[in-house]
Amino acid sequence: MKIVVINGPNLNLLGKRDKSHYGVLTLDEIEKGLKKEFAGHKIEFLQSNHEGEIIDTIQAAPGYFDALVINPGGYSHTSVAIRDALAECKLPKIEVHLSNLAEREDFRKNSITAAVCDGYISGFRNLGYHAAIYLLEKIIAEG
Amino acid sequence: MKIVVINGPNLNLLGKRDKSHYGVLTLDEIEKGLKKEFAGHKIEFLQSNHEGEIIDTIQAAPGYFDALVINPGGYSHTSVAIRDALAECKLPKIEVHLSNLAEREDFRKNSITAAVCDGYISGFRNLGYHAAIYLLEKIIAEG
Amino acid sequence: MKIVVINGPNLNLLGKRDKSHYGVLTLDEIEKGLKKEFAGHKIEFLQSNHEGEIIDTIQAAPGYFDALVINPGGYSHTSVAIRDALAECKLPKIEVHLSNLAEREDFRKNSITAAVCDGYISGFRNLGYHAAIYLLEKIIAEG
Amino acid sequence: MKIVVINGPNLNLLGKRDKSHYGVLTLDEIEKGLKKEFAGHKIEFLQSNHEGEIIDTIQAAPGYFDALVINPGGYSHTSVAIRDALAECKLPKIEVHLSNLAEREDFRKNSITAAVCDGYISGFRNLGYHAAIYLLEKIIAEG
Amino acid sequence: MKIVVINGPNLNLLGKRDKSHYGVLTLDEIEKGLKKEFAGHKIEFLQSNHEGEIIDTIQAAPGYFDALVINPGGYSHTSVAIRDALAECKLPKIEVHLSNLAEREDFRKNSITAAVCDGYISGFRNLGYHAAIYLLEKIIAEG
Amino acid sequence: MKIVVINGPNLNLLGKRDKSHYGVLTLDEIEKGLKKEFAGHKIEFLQSNHEGEIIDTIQAAPGYFDALVINPGGYSHTSVAIRDALAECKLPKIEVHLSNLAEREDFRKNSITAAVCDGYISGFRNLGYHAAIYLLEKIIAEG
Amino acid sequence: MKIVVINGPNLNLLGKRDKSHYGVLTLDEIEKGLKKEFAGHKIEFLQSNHEGEIIDTIQAAPGYFDALVINPGGYSHTSVAIRDALAECKLPKIEVHLSNLAEREDFRKNSITAAVCDGYISGFRNLGYHAAIYLLEKIIAEG
Amino acid sequence: MKIVVINGPNLNLLGKRDKSHYGVLTLDEIEKGLKKEFAGHKIEFLQSNHEGEIIDTIQAAPGYFDALVINPGGYSHTSVAIRDALAECKLPKIEVHLSNLAEREDFRKNSITAAVCDGYISGFRNLGYHAAIYLLEKIIAEG
Amino acid sequence: MKIVVINGPNLNLLGKRDKSHYGVLTLDEIEKGLKKEFAGHKIEFLQSNHEGEIIDTIQAAPGYFDALVINPGGYSHTSVAIRDALAECKLPKIEVHLSNLAEREDFRKNSITAAVCDGYISGFRNLGYHAAIYLLEKIIAEG
Amino acid sequence: MKIVVINGPNLNLLGKRDKSHYGVLTLDEIEKGLKKEFAGHKIEFLQSNHEGEIIDTIQAAPGYFDALVINPGGYSHTSVAIRDALAECKLPKIEVHLSNLAEREDFRKNSITAAVCDGYISGFRNLGYHAAIYLLEKIIAEG
Amino acid sequence: MKIVVINGPNLNLLGKRDKSHYGVLTLDEIEKGLKKEFAGHKIEFLQSNHEGEIIDTIQAAPGYFDALVINPGGYSHTSVAIRDALAECKLPKIEVHLSNLAEREDFRKNSITAAVCDGYISGFRNLGYHAAIYLLEKIIAEG
Amino acid sequence: MKIVVINGPNLNLLGKRDKSHYGVLTLDEIEKGLKKEFAGHKIEFLQSNHEGEIIDTIQAAPGYFDALVINPGGYSHTSVAIRDALAECKLPKIEVHLSNLAEREDFRKNSITAAVCDGYISGFRNLGYHAAIYLLEKIIAEG
Repeated sequence: MKIVVINGPNLNLLGKRDKSHYGVLTLDEIEKGLKKEFAGHKIEFLQSNHEGEIIDTIQAAPGYFDALVINPGGYSHTSVAIRDALAECKLPKIEVHLSNLAEREDFRKNSITAAVCDGYISGFRNLGYHAAIYLLEKIIAEG
Repeated sequence: MKIVVINGPNLNLLGKRDKSHYGVLTLDEIEKGLKKEFAGHKIEFLQSNHEGEIIDTIQAAPGYFDALVINPGGYSHTSVAIRDALAECKLPKIEVHLSNLAEREDFRKNSITAAVCDGYISGFRNLGYHAAIYLLEKIIAEG
Repeated sequence: MKIVVINGPNLNLLGKRDKSHYGVLTLDEIEKGLKKEFAGHKIEFLQSNHEGEIIDTIQAAPGYFDALVINPGGYSHTSVAIRDALAECKLPKIEVHLSNLAEREDFRKNSITAAVCDGYISGFRNLGYHAAIYLLEKIIAEG
Repeated sequence: MKIVVINGPNLNLLGKRDKSHYGVLTLDEIEKGLKKEFAGHKIEFLQSNHEGEIIDTIQAAPGYFDALVINPGGYSHTSVAIRDALAECKLPKIEVHLSNLAEREDFRKNSITAAVCDGYISGFRNLGYHAAIYLLEKIIAEG
Repeated sequence: MKIVVINGPNLNLLGKRDKSHYGVLTLDEIEKGLKKEFAGHKIEFLQSNHEGEIIDTIQAAPGYFDALVINPGGYSHTSVAIRDALAECKLPKIEVHLSNLAEREDFRKNSITAAVCDGYISGFRNLGYHAAIYLLEKIIAEG
Repeated sequence: MKIVVINGPNLNLLGKRDKSHYGVLTLDEIEKGLKKEFAGHKIEFLQSNHEGEIIDTIQAAPGYFDALVINPGGYSHTSVAIRDALAECKLPKIEVHLSNLAEREDFRKNSITAAVCDGYISGFRNLGYHAAIYLLEKIIAEG
Repeated sequence: MKIVVINGPNLNLLGKRDKSHYGVLTLDEIEKGLKKEFAGHKIEFLQSNHEGEIIDTIQAAPGYFDALVINPGGYSHTSVAIRDALAECKLPKIEVHLSNLAEREDFRKNSITAAVCDGYISGFRNLGYHAAIYLLEKIIAEG
Repeated sequence: MKIVVINGPNLNLLGKRDKSHYGVLTLDEIEKGLKKEFAGHKIEFLQSNHEGEIIDTIQAAPGYFDALVINPGGYSHTSVAIRDALAECKLPKIEVHLSNLAEREDFRKNSITAAVCDGYISGFRNLGYHAAIYLLEKIIAEG
Repeated sequence: MKIVVINGPNLNLLGKRDKSHYGVLTLDEIEKGLKKEFAGHKIEFLQSNHEGEIIDTIQAAPGYFDALVINPGGYSHTSVAIRDALAECKLPKIEVHLSNLAEREDFRKNSITAAVCDGYISGFRNLGYHAAIYLLEKIIAEG
Repeated sequence: MKIVVINGPNLNLLGKRDKSHYGVLTLDEIEKGLKKEFAGHKIEFLQSNHEGEIIDTIQAAPGYFDALVINPGGYSHTSVAIRDALAECKLPKIEVHLSNLAEREDFRKNSITAAVCDGYISGFRNLGYHAAIYLLEKIIAEG
Repeated sequence: MKIVVINGPNLNLLGKRDKSHYGVLTLDEIEKGLKKEFAGHKIEFLQSNHEGEIIDTIQAAPGYFDALVINPGGYSHTSVAIRDALAECKLPKIEVHLSNLAEREDFRKNSITAAVCDGYISGFRNLGYHAAIYLLEKIIAEG
Repeated sequence: MKIVVINGPNLNLLGKRDKSHYGVLTLDEIEKGLKKEFAGHKIEFLQSNHEGEIIDTIQAAPGYFDALVINPGGYSHTSVAIRDALAECKLPKIEVHLSNLAEREDFRKNSITAAVCDGYISGFRNLGYHAAIYLLEKIIAEG
């Protein structure tokens, strides 16, 4: 299984960002941990601060990957354009948030991008990525 | 690991409820599938339509279990009382929703109970319960 | 025709409650008047102050009854869980309110449970129950 | 008993309008069915697309009729002027809606005219008119 | 004077709940302190997590008690049904909150149940119950 | 000075409408009182329940009159079309309300038509019309 | 192609109304310009200040015309009844606004009638009517 | 007749303030014009920028005056305290605004003080004061 | 114990104000009753209609008193400045309202000043002051 | 005439996106159809998923083009920055939406970018672009 | 240059107020620091807790000063009256807030008084006053 | 001191944009004026229309600069992503707006990015940048 994991703005700062919300690991460490547990899959890990680049990546994904994991960061709450790109992308797709959106500022409670994914996982720090792959395995197995 | 899985109102109707949102399995089948994959744990599966019973169960859980999974159903959106019970319960705890709350009616988008759990998982039908146990194993392992 | 008439919280106080809104009859008197006019049907009259019990009753109704009348009282405005139970119940079902919701406090104007019934009747005191049975006869006759 | 049944804008289109909301009968067929069941009463059936005409009719009604049934159609949600006319009209009066307002668009959920009627009936297609006459018989009998 | 003191959901957890809001005493200790200061009265102390039980208790209170104190906990903010039960109960009645509602989350600021009590007291931890009995003595003395 | 006084829906019912808000005089009596006090002017008194007729009258007014008084009744709060007609009418124009809008239902507090008049007078029953003519005399005198 | 162009309230005032929003042409001049460019079609130009007349015209249109253009003026923002009439009318239909609604007062930003037309054109003064006919030619050609 | 005319904050600046809203006269000139027209009455003209002083004046008014005119300026929109003082004052009382509140900023549209006056007059610059005295004469004559 | 009792605008009118909300006693009578019951304390009773004076008094209180009771009247709902003064004042402090805020107009339901007091008491007429002193005794005793 | 047609995010997916909203043509096919009908003009067709690129293009447009057509896609509803760029661009400019915004999700109903264009066209699929060029010809001809 | 610096309610408490928001300096120390840096100007430093006094001061300022700095404290968010006074005052004027309003409670985010100043400075503790004088020098130099 | 000054979308258009809001200087002229006054510091002046580039620049700034000034333009009101980047950046940082946000459209009143800066300055045209450097000198001097 080939899986693209798209990380949105400021996620390259992990490890330095507010650790009570985002945990202590860097994005690199998350990537390594994920590839270690799921060594049987080809996982591509990307990060971009650019809304347009994220849209480009989502649009291109069906040609290269079997499934998509996305943590849109701050764009989850504002980007109708990323939402539209995800809605058109027919891969299995899961949204992950490191922090528990339900307990944060009001402007972070509503994810307009999650509504067009298969589902979303919020609050488990780096483990959310693991659960996403764990679920994609099952979703694809079920067909 | 001993885990209680609390299911709120109308979840005993699974298999008959709107399948596009909730999937095709009954609660019994979900329970069996879960116990099969996680045979190494003692999993107690409960369902109640009564808000007070759910609160009683949450309050009693720390004496009998190591972790808690809850699908509060319709109470997620209205019950300050269940929220308060969860907030006092110091076990690792995960909220699961079968359907993707982000794409449903506005009155289902906000979960006031998820805000006091470690995190929540929404949209993966029965697989959400599996992901919850999968995550609890890791959370407890990490201490 | 077997019909269950479910009465929610505080309806056991009828006859004592604010008579300008709810009329002068007790629930017993309403039940008797109803059974007298519709003696040809088997009508079961229930009242509970417990949200969970009302859900249990709705879930069980299809096994025992041909149609359902419900006056959810104060739960009409807050209970997503009763709404979900009604939505799953495939009997013909009618919501009745003794008072005219459209002229009361704002928090009573919106019924989230009526939206999943066939229709609702509001403002005719005890006569609303009579109109409900009158309509169920026609609805079932029409098939 | 002499009863005027006032039908607001677009109700002359019944039979052609969206049948899942409004049913399959034309206004003529509704009128005939109603007069057949309640042959003992003199029922006058009117329809107008003009807000002013509806107000004129309501104002004149007490001189000619014993009771009033109104389906204000789209004016239910916007016309303070019809509301004021109804409030001044001292006949027994019932509002009827063919569709179930509680499950429709938000701008149809609130009826400002129903608040000044004795009560309202919503969701039973043509049968709502029948229930209105059935109720008016009882209301007038009770005095 | 016979007084019932009704405590809503999660108040059985006092002493363990967030002490900055609720104080350090258990519900038992509060009960004892209260009975000690007001030894001349018969005080019955109840706690329930069940909305329906609280309604049943309020409905039954006039047959057994002269006055009522209620801390509805999380139900203060959501239960139209408890509000309706209190409105029908003609005893002198006072609502007590341990924490200062005015400084808490928005969803705790509005008490729909307090509106139908004689008055309410908020923010004085266990002392709120003492002030309630102190006030009931005066209210009943004044007739 | 030739003045048209336009009265909107239900004002023909004055004398019968809720007297605490609208006073005891009929529209005829108001007209007579007004013509008696201001015998030196030609005052034309009109009433219509029809929004379109009111717009026609406003549009035609500049050809026949020197000033305009309008009590748009219920249309004050909803009619963008009457507002647009008034905005185009270059006569001195004053809006009158018999009742005190500031103390009535929320949906009557905002007058979208008053915003395009010179000013408005609210709460003085029939005397509001007198004050309007009194003010028009001064406004026209001042040029 | 036979096309009816329905113009709502106050559009008979064009040429005199606020020219920065509505342009300098009268309705007559707009009609003439339109008929000149589209001499091959039979275009019927109507204007009414009466909501009910506009509804009557829409309802009758399918018997006489192949397509419909409507500028509902102030009724665009308030008339559920015109919306319902348009929704039932199965002709190709286009809404035109002379001014750019997006830059005007908030109460003019939302058109509830445009939602049931094929589309709408806003801000191009008289040219909006030309574009509407231009589009209808193509829509009908495409079938 | 002895009448107090209370002017709130910034009204001492009249003549310098935005003349399109407030007119060209100073408060002194308004006072003189008023006393000239109504020379038969004793009119006391006061101005204060202090909310407390205005409340003191309102409270004291019944001991010295037969009627009260108030232009609360910016306090109209925010002062619950002035509202309460006016509500307790049993004199005939009229609120005057120089500018047309209905066409100004949203925060000026709602007057919480006007709701407890007999009525209010808005938009006629200095003439509003004249109309107020003109109306008080009639109100007191009618008793 | 030296206690200052600060009374805000219009409270000097007690005995004359709407008795269903505020009770029948004058402020003098309340003061006397309070000093009689709590003769062991030095109680200073103040009233002012001036927001600034109330702020001055709160700021000065710590130099002269051991505790503070405040009934801010209408300023409770609007004065950020009194709130800030109370927040800086480190004395034990209790807010009292004569009427039950929870059952009054919406603009009286939210007290922004109570949020920075230890707690508040609402609805017990003059007895609220007694309960405040009763509570302050206990609060200071507990240290 | 040289015209730039700027297409925002996800419009490169046309032909694959939800066809009931966006039609069956690809962006290439739209471009070809447009150039075919308007062969006399030089039309430059651009598409970008990047907000910044769209702003750069708008800023540069006056140096190269005589007019601008823009379909900002999802950015219409969120981008204050594109709005500001359009406001500064003094070319004739028209906004086009393929789908009828008035009948879509609430977050798509308000276009903050259309407010600073000459006007906008919504709902006519690919034909909207044609109408835009048709209108630009007339606008530029009129000067 | 003569500059008046007006400080609103509770600013006399600086040094004691919450230091994380307001800094450690007293108002006296701020005044001294300011006069030291800007010794070439005559700076008058005032503080008042009284809304009316602040208005009086603003109104009088043009007769005595060349520029105005104001920190309205809690009145920034509620005082339409101070806003009106500032709007009439034609001096260069700058609003200063010690704390960063954008990160505080919602009721502190909106300053209705800043809207009628030349600009405002928020979040720099005592340094905000320095920046205000620094800017006034430049503004007046530029004329 | 090395300072980066980041300018967001459309600020490259200064000198051409609406001068009543933004002033007459170009960004180049602002840069020159700033460098002239603060010749002792190394000031780097950047402008980008791309949200992602601005985030990249903020993230990189701590490695190259001692302080940061940002004018996020239209992104101030919508970009959660820039807010998150600023929150992670530990340099002293000041937000500048050329226009006075408090007097502009509602959608420009709230800056979500300013909340995570040390403070912000709004309304002083080019002078705001000068005041920002002036303040940074003091902030860094104070340590």
